Amino acid sequence: MSKINLKEKLSLFSEHWSPKVISELNDYQIKLVKIKGDFVWHNHSETDELFLVIDGEMKIEFKDKTVELNKGEMYVVPKGVEHRPYAENECEIMLIEPKDVVNTGEKENDLTASNDVWI
Amino acid sequence: MSKINLKEKLSLFSEHWSPKVISELNDYQIKLVKIKGDFVWHNHSETDELFLVIDGEMKIEFKDKTVELNKGEMYVVPKGVEHRPYAENECEIMLIEPKDVVNTGEKENDLTASNDVWI
Repeated sequence: MSKINLKEKLSLFSEHWSPKVISELNDYQIKLVKIKGDFVWHNHSETDELFLVIDGEMKIEFKDKTVELNKGEMYVVPKGVEHRPYAENECEIMLIEPKDVVNTGEKENDLTASNDVWI
Repeated sequence: MSKINLKEKLSLFSEHWSPKVISELNDYQIKLVKIKGDFVWHNHSETDELFLVIDGEMKIEFKDKTVELNKGEMYVVPKGVEHRPYAENECEIMLIEPKDVVNTGEKENDLTASNDVWI
């Protein structure tokens, strides 16, 4: 176990919408992801999902509102709630959720990323 | 549920070694804490514990090594491992761990903080 520098880990990849695992906390995983553009509507029926913006800005669209998150801001999407992340410009995010959570929820599509990819 | 600005939450308190809960993720809690000086040796026998430095620098002393963490760096202390956080100057930290984790582990002393205090 060694310390993890978030910016250093973020420098190791450039693709969007492809979460990378950087650490585990019991049966949870800490992931970094770069996002740009639109994602798909989805939900995670079994778990909440934490978004923390490391750099940039993003939006999370819900059916009844849109939340804007800037650097240093976080939001926990409650389990089962439909949401759609969006970023006009590239945004760097930390995600925390249990192991085995798929980024597109129960819908598999072009944006479904390989799970459990470590950097 | 509204978004959480870490710096805004950190501006709401000044005491050291007294974690404040800012959000929950399933049965986990996200906490902010300001630390300065020495803490006590302790461990958490049932859980890992995530430290993420929001601002400043800190050290986590272990029996066999010391880890230095600067802003933007994190470390997961494995469950059961004795550790002692330390900061020469005030350091702002995010902690993530299951609900009901006591800051001093199983040892109650002057540094034991009230649990589940929200800001």
